[in-house]
Parts: sequence; structure tokens; C-alpha cells
Amino acid sequence: MNADKIPDIIIGRLPVYLRALQRMADSGKKTTSSQELGEHVGISAAQIRKDISQFGEFGKQGTGYSISFLLDKLREILNVNRIWDVAIIGAGDMGHALARYQGFVNRGFRVAMVFDNDPTKIGQKIGEFTIEDIDKMVERIRAAKIKMAMITVPAATAQAVADKLVQAGVKAILNYAPISINVPENVRVQYIDPATHLQRMTYYLD
Amino acid sequence: MNADKIPDIIIGRLPVYLRALQRMADSGKKTTSSQELGEHVGISAAQIRKDISQFGEFGKQGTGYSISFLLDKLREILNVNRIWDVAIIGAGDMGHALARYQGFVNRGFRVAMVFDNDPTKIGQKIGEFTIEDIDKMVERIRAAKIKMAMITVPAATAQAVADKLVQAGVKAILNYAPISINVPENVRVQYIDPATHLQRMTYYLD
Repeated sequence: MNADKIPDIIIGRLPVYLRALQRMADSGKKTTSSQELGEHVGISAAQIRKDISQFGEFGKQGTGYSISFLLDKLREILNVNRIWDVAIIGAGDMGHALARYQGFVNRGFRVAMVFDNDPTKIGQKIGEFTIEDIDKMVERIRAAKIKMAMITVPAATAQAVADKLVQAGVKAILNYAPISINVPENVRVQYIDPATHLQRMTYYLD
Repeated sequence: MNADKIPDIIIGRLPVYLRALQRMADSGKKTTSSQELGEHVGISAAQIRKDISQFGEFGKQGTGYSISFLLDKLREILNVNRIWDVAIIGAGDMGHALARYQGFVNRGFRVAMVFDNDPTKIGQKIGEFTIEDIDKMVERIRAAKIKMAMITVPAATAQAVADKLVQAGVKAILNYAPISINVPENVRVQYIDPATHLQRMTYYLD
């Protein structure tokens, strides 16, 4: 396996395959084919076979893929055969929604801490979490060795929060603030901005 | 302009440029360069020049881009020089966060309606919106000629909701449910799933 040489576009499709396979497993299915998986995720069977073959020979001619085997392999490749603690910075509406989000269960993630800078929010509860003071964030994240964070603060403060997260040792940031952030090369950033996603579709509308 | 021939990957970058230019304009800047824009968005100056030149000659050698001119052009290309009404289906935590989200303002979108199937939620308010009965959704969306929707229901009901949205004439869906949905070819779908975004980064972590 030449992990370093796999294009990021392929890596980006693996979580989608993983999600679809997990749903198949949940519904009691044992095996699947690239055709069937392709219909679930809207990607061609040929592309799926090509993507998966980058990592080894996981399917059998004629019998297809064992779902549990492929799930194990994809979890191993994506490093989610373990649980990653994730910090949320920003206890607004989006931070609340993420802190209570049920979609991380069984997918490799657990929200571990929630921070805000608003004195009226610090000490309040969101579900099982107590909102912590952002001034303690670097120290707390570093002590807990947390490597992942989600930024849900306003655009104006997102860069300053990102700088502190980098300082705390965070290596992967999911940024919900509607602004691009600059981080060192060894830190990954992914963006979630509904307006950007919507604008990508209006291009095609009349 | 050969709009049909522009690769979708380029279209996907335009909203990011638009967002950065809007912030520059908000801060009072009048002109920018592909270098400066590139530093803001983390994309090379050469790539930005190439992307923008697909649509015409918008910059001047030596003086760079007029921000207001480029903003107008990008809004026109992306069809957001108008306001699109968007329906939210699912009044859970994420639906609430989106209904109250301030990030759509000046970016071409306005939440117009919120639907749910839970009798205890129907008739309740989220900010200025009254949660409406999902059984009236097709009729209401069709009557209002709404073309865009955000799905924030659980995975198990997302496909059924998508089918109804297609029936109602919706042409673009932003799906927050953690499942791939099938729609006809003339309907666009974008996905927002924080776990998928996080898994795309854990691949690169130790």
C-alpha cells in the first residue's frame, strides 16, 4: 500500500463508501457488489473497484465483497478503527447542534470538550458537556492530547481560534466559520459552509 | 462563455473566491491580485487566474482585479445575483441552527419555510418561522416555486423526503442526513456530513 501516493480525491470517497457499507451491515446484509454499492452512493461500479483496489484485493470475482471485511479495511485505512476525541469551539446554535449530534457514534469520533468566550455561556451545560472558558483551551486540549477540532465561531474570530488550536497541537480542523483559515502545512482543514455548497448548485439552475 | 463545459471542480472553487472577495470588500478594499486572493483561500495564484479566465478577461495586467467588478461577475456566473428561497425539512437541532443561521445574508439565499413530521413541533416557532406540517410540503413548495431545499431529517427518512422534494419541483438539495440519496439527473445534491469530513482527515493523522 502506497498510502502517500493515493490521490486525496480517492480518500474523499472512502468515507462515503464506509457510510453506505455501515448501513448495509446495519440492515443485516453480509455481501455486496461494486454495482450495488455504486447505486447506493451514485458512483460508477468501475470507479469503486478502482478506488478500493488501490489498497489491495478485497473482493472476489463472482462473490463480490464481504461487507464486514471491507468495513474493517476501510476503517483501518481511514484510521477510524479507534475513537478520536474532538473539541468544539463556539457554543452557538451550530456548536450546540454538533455537541448533541448523534451521527458521530460508531464512526470514529466523540465530542470531548466545548469552549466559548462568552461569560454568560461558560459553565452552562449542553447535554452532558459543560461549556469551558476559551482562555483555558490551549492548556486543556494539549493536556488531553486532542488532535481534532470543529470551529463554530463567527468568521471574525475563526483565524485567532485556529492559531490557538495549532498551538495546542491540533492537526485536523473542521471549520464551520464562513472564512478560509491559514494553518501550517502539517495541519489539515476541511470546510463546511452551507452557503458555499448552495452556490455550487445555483450555477446549474435557471 | 461555454458554461456547460466548465469542470465542476472549478465551479466548486468560485464560491470560495466569492466569499473571500466579499470579506475584502467589507473591509473597504477596492482591488486585489490573484496572489493576495490566493493567500486568503489557500489556492495558487496561477490556479485562480486560470479559473477566472474561463469566464472572460476580468483582470488587468499590473493593476489586478477590481473587487466590486469581480464580485458582480462571480455572482452573475453563480446565479446568486438574486435571492433563492430555500426550504428546510427537519426541525431538529441542525434544522434550528440553519433556520437561525446568519451566514446566508448577502450570499443569495433566504430560508423561506421549515417543515417537520412531529405533531409536537408543527406550529411551533423557530425565530420568525412557524414549523409546518410535512404533509403539506409538496403543495407549499410547488405553490411558492421553491427550487432549493436542505434536508436535516434522520437518515432513515431522507430518501422519502428527497423523493417528495423532487415531486415538488426542487432542483437542488443540500443533504445533512448521513446517507446518500438518489435523485433524477436534473436535480443536484450536495452533502454535508461532519463525520465524513472528519474521516477524510483522519486518514492523514498518525
